[in-house]
Amino acid sequence: MSAPAPLPPLVYEGLVRRALQEDLGRAGDVTTDAVCPPGLPGRARLVARAAGRIAGLDASLLAFRLLDPVVSIEICVPDGHDAAAGETIARVEGSARALLAAERTALNLLGHLSGVATATRDAVARLEGLPTRVAATRKTTPGLRALEKHAVRLGGGTPHRYGLDDAVLVKDNHVALAGGVAEAVRRARASVGHLVKIEIEVDTLAQLDEALAAGAEVVLLDNMDLATLREAVRRSRGRAVTEASGGIRPETIRAVAETGVDVVSLGWLTHSAPSLDVALDVEA
Amino acid sequence: MSAPAPLPPLVYEGLVRRALQEDLGRAGDVTTDAVCPPGLPGRARLVARAAGRIAGLDASLLAFRLLDPVVSIEICVPDGHDAAAGETIARVEGSARALLAAERTALNLLGHLSGVATATRDAVARLEGLPTRVAATRKTTPGLRALEKHAVRLGGGTPHRYGLDDAVLVKDNHVALAGGVAEAVRRARASVGHLVKIEIEVDTLAQLDEALAAGAEVVLLDNMDLATLREAVRRSRGRAVTEASGGIRPETIRAVAETGVDVVSLGWLTHSAPSLDVALDVEA
Amino acid sequence: MSAPAPLPPLVYEGLVRRALQEDLGRAGDVTTDAVCPPGLPGRARLVARAAGRIAGLDASLLAFRLLDPVVSIEICVPDGHDAAAGETIARVEGSARALLAAERTALNLLGHLSGVATATRDAVARLEGLPTRVAATRKTTPGLRALEKHAVRLGGGTPHRYGLDDAVLVKDNHVALAGGVAEAVRRARASVGHLVKIEIEVDTLAQLDEALAAGAEVVLLDNMDLATLREAVRRSRGRAVTEASGGIRPETIRAVAETGVDVVSLGWLTHSAPSLDVALDVEA
Amino acid sequence: MSAPAPLPPLVYEGLVRRALQEDLGRAGDVTTDAVCPPGLPGRARLVARAAGRIAGLDASLLAFRLLDPVVSIEICVPDGHDAAAGETIARVEGSARALLAAERTALNLLGHLSGVATATRDAVARLEGLPTRVAATRKTTPGLRALEKHAVRLGGGTPHRYGLDDAVLVKDNHVALAGGVAEAVRRARASVGHLVKIEIEVDTLAQLDEALAAGAEVVLLDNMDLATLREAVRRSRGRAVTEASGGIRPETIRAVAETGVDVVSLGWLTHSAPSLDVALDVEA
Amino acid sequence: MSAPAPLPPLVYEGLVRRALQEDLGRAGDVTTDAVCPPGLPGRARLVARAAGRIAGLDASLLAFRLLDPVVSIEICVPDGHDAAAGETIARVEGSARALLAAERTALNLLGHLSGVATATRDAVARLEGLPTRVAATRKTTPGLRALEKHAVRLGGGTPHRYGLDDAVLVKDNHVALAGGVAEAVRRARASVGHLVKIEIEVDTLAQLDEALAAGAEVVLLDNMDLATLREAVRRSRGRAVTEASGGIRPETIRAVAETGVDVVSLGWLTHSAPSLDVALDVEA
Amino acid sequence: MSAPAPLPPLVYEGLVRRALQEDLGRAGDVTTDAVCPPGLPGRARLVARAAGRIAGLDASLLAFRLLDPVVSIEICVPDGHDAAAGETIARVEGSARALLAAERTALNLLGHLSGVATATRDAVARLEGLPTRVAATRKTTPGLRALEKHAVRLGGGTPHRYGLDDAVLVKDNHVALAGGVAEAVRRARASVGHLVKIEIEVDTLAQLDEALAAGAEVVLLDNMDLATLREAVRRSRGRAVTEASGGIRPETIRAVAETGVDVVSLGWLTHSAPSLDVALDVEA
Repeated sequence: MSAPAPLPPLVYEGLVRRALQEDLGRAGDVTTDAVCPPGLPGRARLVARAAGRIAGLDASLLAFRLLDPVVSIEICVPDGHDAAAGETIARVEGSARALLAAERTALNLLGHLSGVATATRDAVARLEGLPTRVAATRKTTPGLRALEKHAVRLGGGTPHRYGLDDAVLVKDNHVALAGGVAEAVRRARASVGHLVKIEIEVDTLAQLDEALAAGAEVVLLDNMDLATLREAVRRSRGRAVTEASGGIRPETIRAVAETGVDVVSLGWLTHSAPSLDVALDVEA
Repeated sequence: MSAPAPLPPLVYEGLVRRALQEDLGRAGDVTTDAVCPPGLPGRARLVARAAGRIAGLDASLLAFRLLDPVVSIEICVPDGHDAAAGETIARVEGSARALLAAERTALNLLGHLSGVATATRDAVARLEGLPTRVAATRKTTPGLRALEKHAVRLGGGTPHRYGLDDAVLVKDNHVALAGGVAEAVRRARASVGHLVKIEIEVDTLAQLDEALAAGAEVVLLDNMDLATLREAVRRSRGRAVTEASGGIRPETIRAVAETGVDVVSLGWLTHSAPSLDVALDVEA
Repeated sequence: MSAPAPLPPLVYEGLVRRALQEDLGRAGDVTTDAVCPPGLPGRARLVARAAGRIAGLDASLLAFRLLDPVVSIEICVPDGHDAAAGETIARVEGSARALLAAERTALNLLGHLSGVATATRDAVARLEGLPTRVAATRKTTPGLRALEKHAVRLGGGTPHRYGLDDAVLVKDNHVALAGGVAEAVRRARASVGHLVKIEIEVDTLAQLDEALAAGAEVVLLDNMDLATLREAVRRSRGRAVTEASGGIRPETIRAVAETGVDVVSLGWLTHSAPSLDVALDVEA
Repeated sequence: MSAPAPLPPLVYEGLVRRALQEDLGRAGDVTTDAVCPPGLPGRARLVARAAGRIAGLDASLLAFRLLDPVVSIEICVPDGHDAAAGETIARVEGSARALLAAERTALNLLGHLSGVATATRDAVARLEGLPTRVAATRKTTPGLRALEKHAVRLGGGTPHRYGLDDAVLVKDNHVALAGGVAEAVRRARASVGHLVKIEIEVDTLAQLDEALAAGAEVVLLDNMDLATLREAVRRSRGRAVTEASGGIRPETIRAVAETGVDVVSLGWLTHSAPSLDVALDVEA
Repeated sequence: MSAPAPLPPLVYEGLVRRALQEDLGRAGDVTTDAVCPPGLPGRARLVARAAGRIAGLDASLLAFRLLDPVVSIEICVPDGHDAAAGETIARVEGSARALLAAERTALNLLGHLSGVATATRDAVARLEGLPTRVAATRKTTPGLRALEKHAVRLGGGTPHRYGLDDAVLVKDNHVALAGGVAEAVRRARASVGHLVKIEIEVDTLAQLDEALAAGAEVVLLDNMDLATLREAVRRSRGRAVTEASGGIRPETIRAVAETGVDVVSLGWLTHSAPSLDVALDVEA
Repeated sequence: MSAPAPLPPLVYEGLVRRALQEDLGRAGDVTTDAVCPPGLPGRARLVARAAGRIAGLDASLLAFRLLDPVVSIEICVPDGHDAAAGETIARVEGSARALLAAERTALNLLGHLSGVATATRDAVARLEGLPTRVAATRKTTPGLRALEKHAVRLGGGTPHRYGLDDAVLVKDNHVALAGGVAEAVRRARASVGHLVKIEIEVDTLAQLDEALAAGAEVVLLDNMDLATLREAVRRSRGRAVTEASGGIRPETIRAVAETGVDVVSLGWLTHSAPSLDVALDVEA
């Protein structure tokens, strides 16, 4: 995947405002307000305490801007780049009170999203030399869909569906409701526009054959063992994009990819990646 | 800690709406809409795929209610209770289309918050027999402060500050700005109301003495080794509540608690706890 | 296209609230409030003054519900069905004051969206016997994207892209920026996920050849004359979906479709379709 | 009518944000992002493809500003002025990516509102030499009330009621509820403030007499033929402002106005005026 | 003034939600949550501790409904009626926790708005036997315009302008900008619709003559002594509605009204009326 | 109390926007728009008509900034300082139309909040020489909690609880629910974090003894006579902070404070303080 362009701040500004508001509450930063004169200038550095892939920096810096509109910012490690442990990610200069009040919100955004990007980067790294893409799922943190998908892209992964509305993904429940794979695909094709792709989840090779016959553009190979995956890839060649999913972990991802699947998708990139350790070193 | 009362839905309804909206997008669940007749009734079970402490169930079920106001719900394992692997957490009955469209949002809420509660429960369990409390920090996921703090309480932990405004926490930057611990506390005391407690972060025993002398009600013992912690506890007895913090992990938490500190606080409960594996089994 | 399922009200509830609020202002319906006792029950019928395809009825009825939560509603001509001139579309029974206060908001929604659906239906009807689909564009009324796209679907059309994010559409500016069609497609392919289709706009057959060679999945044939369209369709057969666009009007749509293109897209379905004449007959 | 002052952006900023958000979705402009480097500067011109009265330009340009706060703008044909076919309306210079991402939102606003203003201007032009005013109604597009009323004013028309709350308009239902015109007016007068005018809708000359006797300040002459209108005007002279309404079309508006009515009101100015054809010519 | 109809809850629901949220914060009612079991039923009475005119009861009760959707409510003294000291205004029965958590929000709404209504009622009472109306101004509490104006109406007063947009009020600054009263009125008349009244503020009889000559429909007689007021009333008779304003207090209002002015307007009704003492007696 | 730092505008920006919107409505300031050319520059002074303590100036000036982002502002009497009658509080220079349109919103904010601050300052002044603090309550105006509490602080008072969530306040209902003071405190202690203080309301000395025995950190002495208060203070010394509350008025506050209580809390500071008379003198 190529490095993604920055998201328009309009997409995440509401979240950053809400995050600041839930930290400031009704009285603001009572500690800083008690000790720090209003006009005092301050300088601080966002620092990586551990090595990782940076994501969410733009959103994170917006937290400072929302509390001090004339804050001055120098980005050292932009979104999508790797920071070494101890490396300075960005320098901010502005009202000391704003820096301290925005600190935790900024770090929470940066740490969480860099955690997602770093987990993705590491998964991608395990597939070096293979053409297989690493994809996220819709198992994201509520309210953070756009930012977490973007973090996956910054980690070198591919976002998969952003929601229920941008592609068809026929699962077993849908097949049961339609009375068969072919009928489910037929209904989906008749229902959605010519720019919407159709993916079908299959558990067995028999289901795969049915899905391919029905014209699936992508097949989701769910919880298959490696041998079955290899055979599924063979049968799908030239007919559909193949995606492996289901309980794939860092240790097993390369073996899965070596079956030849086009995409490996992993829920834990977004729902369980640990936060990257980042800090704000204030030189108030 | 005693089991907390449910949060008023007013506190999190906005988040659940936004989470549904980011999944439904502009066109809704195009797959389900293609295959499932509007009026079709459905039944489903929220199931724990792994054992854990349930949290976020109320919020999770609100996702179904917002898509089908007359959905019928039976709760089997309420918030704050433990589910075994495979156990049914709740049964929902309503429009099949609403169940499928709300599924992912409901699971993302439930899995994430139960992950936080389970991590907390496990940390609390490690301290069995000790009076030490397990506390969260403000290192929470942006937008989820109230729900994650509540999940910590459901796990048996204590929430610590909800924001920058409900207690004073004097850190090194504040001390530097005020020109000393005593002056920082004096300013804080003069600035905040009579219902606001004052906590001071200290790195050394010398700083601790200064903080105690200044009248700190709580002292945050940051990154101290066990021997120093023990001594800090001794000096604080009868004078201030003691809280240990800084890089404490599951493996080390008991040893820290055995120094006699009143509270152990852990950022990873909220920023890095893995999601609990939960699923929706639909019997459409 | 098959008849679409209803949109979840969550998608448009905000719009209906805002529409009511902009009509009620700060003092509400001062005329009705002056003459009508609070508790008075009322009955009314939504009536089509002209024949047309109904759309927006669900949203329209929500206006009544938001002012009288216990209003009783009987739908006679549901969304996606045709009403004859004079036909009753729905009956509502509830507080007379709520009926009168919601009237204009309900009619504005219903008239506007039924206008879009009727225009689409009529365009589709002109293509009877042909496999060509009628598509909308992103030339929608600000704030009404989801509802207008849905109205197009209720008219038998297909929605095309819902936004800038759910498919790639490479236009001349993008080609210029990338330095060529092939490079633009290469970059797009490397940038977006495996569920995102790529469409390329072309003005000439030479550009078409380039687009097909670059692997376009859909080609937008912009402002071509019928002969060129026919040739473009011939060259694209088996390689890409073809879409004709650019100044196509009701009178010319069939001729365009007869060139064999798969899709004809029309901006005026959403930006210039006249409102359907609908009224509320109150039997207070 | 004199040319109106610009609306405060606070009135429509929310709409422009929502319009951008519904177009950007969760991933933004994926096509532009794939081909266009972040820092690339761009220049573009808003151009009228057809002649018309410009309206909504301020709102339209706000779309660019919201994506690029430092965009530079030169207005050539301001709101309320006429553009010839092919004429440049405004020049914008800023981030090429922002220009392309905001393009459709800006054009949708500008085209729709200029369509309303142009239809109004043309209706006003048909009444040249007559003192009759052209008024809009409350038949506006949901969410666009303030902007469409403003567009009507920019076209030379008068806005009529902005909502249910800023004037009394007694219709047949209200008369029925009150048990007569006189009683309806009496109740309205007792209910509203001294700055609120009272208009009464009448279908016949007998009703007109009743309304005038009751002290109506404005009479709405609904669906009367020209002879009746003339007589109604004669009877109202010096007693009430007269307004003709009901199915009046461009072809008939002058004849209606020549009866001597003070105001002619037309729903189609806002609910059915076709969009003005406008485009963005990018010189990226 | 006749008793006003209830405001649609849609107008104030946002305010009540925000008021609850600012009281509940992130953790809810921690006291009640600690002592009160979730399912416990409760009963409570809203009681007037002092005599007054009730206003805001509907909004106040909405606070309970938002925390307990199935709360049962019995209204004893509806909005617009007088409560004696000690009288029960309403009874609520529902979740004990919801009653306690909503208590302060409900009382703040009820006390504040009943204070406004009571002050208005008392001012109206002082004018008994006179035809003069008591009007509020735009000097309202930020965010409460609609509710405070409604409270004024419930007190028997008239609301005056709800905002800057529903009537013209030409003040000295406007006259200066236009270069004279006549020109200001001419511009206003050319700018606003036929349903908008024009009021002119005058300080002297000379200005009054100018305003009347210019066609003012209402004249605001600002800070005139009683003799001047009487003369102003005489000159305005049959030509314009007269409104006295400026520093009028309860003690002076009758003398002002006896000059014959049609309306007396008082800022303190909304900006300085003391709250009515109301309480919630819980029988948990 | 020391002078508080300014609140972050993020805390109140939403309120100021809503206040402007409720005044501008759908058509804006129709009077100014009719008479004042768009580009005209203007100058104005915010002036205190009566002497008082200034509060809400920052919020008030934001109203001008939101209508004219490049307005230039000079603050003469900042928040928390005293203005003499006739003194200029601030000078604003910008678009004349923006100044006039924002005038009322700015004054309503400034007058209301300065009224609260002035009432607080006066109460504090009555306690000169005594160590007693003057506290507000949660009896605030809906939607204005944060700003009114801040105004109390600017008046020299202390804010008390900001909401139901930042401290425990056990009242009689809670005691009844828990079955006794001791049990209520025990439950509260087990339920809330180590940074939350516990206050208990008592009516009698017997209850006070119980509360002190139960470990209350603050005792609220409700409606006690002076002798009882004195005895309560004596019993509480060294054990709990004492707060007197209940019907305390300006005339009685000093006598209450002289009993030795630490805090006196007064609802009328926020629910019944009259507005400070402020005006905008425009030199357009």
